[in-house]
Amino acid sequence: MGRIICAGLGPGDPDLVSVRADRAIRQAGDVAYFRKRGRQGQARRIVQGMLAHDVREYPMEYPVTTEIPFDSPEYNALLAQFYDHWAARLAELATAREVVVLCEGDPFFYGSFMHLYVRLRGLVPVEVIPGIPGMAGCWNATGLPVTWGDDVLTVLTGTLPEADLVRHMADADALVVMKTGRNLPKVRRALAAAGRLDDAWLIERGTMPGERVARLAEIGDDDCPYFAIVMVHGQGRRPVAQARAAQ
Amino acid sequence: MGRIICAGLGPGDPDLVSVRADRAIRQAGDVAYFRKRGRQGQARRIVQGMLAHDVREYPMEYPVTTEIPFDSPEYNALLAQFYDHWAARLAELATAREVVVLCEGDPFFYGSFMHLYVRLRGLVPVEVIPGIPGMAGCWNATGLPVTWGDDVLTVLTGTLPEADLVRHMADADALVVMKTGRNLPKVRRALAAAGRLDDAWLIERGTMPGERVARLAEIGDDDCPYFAIVMVHGQGRRPVAQARAAQ
Repeated sequence: MGRIICAGLGPGDPDLVSVRADRAIRQAGDVAYFRKRGRQGQARRIVQGMLAHDVREYPMEYPVTTEIPFDSPEYNALLAQFYDHWAARLAELATAREVVVLCEGDPFFYGSFMHLYVRLRGLVPVEVIPGIPGMAGCWNATGLPVTWGDDVLTVLTGTLPEADLVRHMADADALVVMKTGRNLPKVRRALAAAGRLDDAWLIERGTMPGERVARLAEIGDDDCPYFAIVMVHGQGRRPVAQARAAQ
Repeated sequence: MGRIICAGLGPGDPDLVSVRADRAIRQAGDVAYFRKRGRQGQARRIVQGMLAHDVREYPMEYPVTTEIPFDSPEYNALLAQFYDHWAARLAELATAREVVVLCEGDPFFYGSFMHLYVRLRGLVPVEVIPGIPGMAGCWNATGLPVTWGDDVLTVLTGTLPEADLVRHMADADALVVMKTGRNLPKVRRALAAAGRLDDAWLIERGTMPGERVARLAEIGDDDCPYFAIVMVHGQGRRPVAQARAAQ
C-alpha cells in the first residue's frame, strides 16, 4: 500500500526545509509538483540537488494562471478539472507507491496542494509535513521582528476589494499582503489611505538568491512579481528599562 | 570572533526543525534557552537527544511569568532587567564563541528572543534561523487547511480587550488566538459574540506527544494551558466542478 506525502518546502532556501521533509524528498521514488507551463517551477528549483538520480517526476502544469480572471466561471472550470485530473492520477499512483508532492511554504496556508488534499482524503492515506510559510522567510529577510506583545497580525491578499484592504490595514498592527503583482497599485493606495504606507516593505524572493528587501515607497508599480510580499511590522509592547522608556 | 545564532525550533516535533537549525544545534558548544524557573522548558525538551554531550548550557529563567500582570510597571521593570542581563551575558560569551539560542516556533513571531535581539544588534553578529510557527503546527494537527483563495487571516492574543477580540473575530475569515490559558473564558465569549464559536478548535501541544485537538465548545474554561491555540479555519474560494458546486 502506498500513500501521498505532501512536503512543505518553506520559503525557498533548501536549508530551511524541515528535517522530516528533507528526508522524504531525498528518499522519494516519485515526486509531483505544480508549475506554470513551460517553467521549471519554484518548488522543483528548491529541491534541485536533493532528488535521487532515478526519481520519477510528475510536473502538474496549471492550465491557466493569470491569463483570465480568477473569479470567472471559465477559470473555475479549468482549475477544477485540473485538480480532479491530478487527484485521480496521484490516487492511482499511490495505491502501490509512496508519492511525494512538493509544496512551497506551508501546504495548508494558501497552498495549491489543499485542492488535491480535499479530493484525496478518504481515497488514499495522505500525510502533510508543515513548512515555514513564505511570509516568515520574508519577515526574517527584513531583519525585524513582526509581532510584539499584543500585536494583531492580519494577512491579506492583494486580490481583495480596495475598501476591504483599507479597513483591515487600519485595524491591524502588523500586516502581510500576499498575491501582490499587478494588484500593487491598489495595495499601495490602500496602505496610504490607512496611513501605513511609510512603514511598508516589499520582499521578493525572501531567503533565496536574488532576494530583494525594499521600502515599498521606493518601488515602482510595474516592478512587482505576483509572489512578492508586502508587509508592515508591529511595534507592540516590550519591556524597556524606565530610564530608556522615559527618553 | 564569535556570534549569536538564534535557532527557530518550530512547533515542537524535533523532526520539524529546519535542516539549518538542526545542524547548528548539533554542532553547538554553547546553547542558551528560556524557561520558567524550576522547569526543564519546552525549548530544551525539543532538542533532547540533539545536543553534544559536552555542550555548555545557559538556562535563562524568567524572573516572573503570569504571577503579576504583564502590563504592570513591576513586570516591565523585572523583564527589562532580565533581558538586559542576558543580552550582556550573551554578548560577552559571543566575543570568543558561537552561542546558539533556542527559540520555539519562529523567533520573529511573538518570540522572547526578539527582546535580546534588539539589545544585541550592533554589539555582536546575530543570525536568526526562521522556524515553523507554532500556529502552523496547530493547524496541521487539525488536518484542515487554514486559508483558501482570498481568505483574511487574523492572529490575535487572548490578552486583548474583549471588544477588540469581537471586532477582529467578526471581520476575519480565518482566526488564530495565541496566549489563551486563563483568557479562555473571554476568548470564548468573544467568539460567541462574533458568531464564530461553533467553528472554533482548541489545539494543545500541536505536533508533540500529548497533542490534543478538540472543538472549543467541548472544552472547559479551566482546562486550557497558556500555550494552547484557538483557531477557526477559513472557508474561502476554491475551484469546484459545476455539477458539484450546484448541489
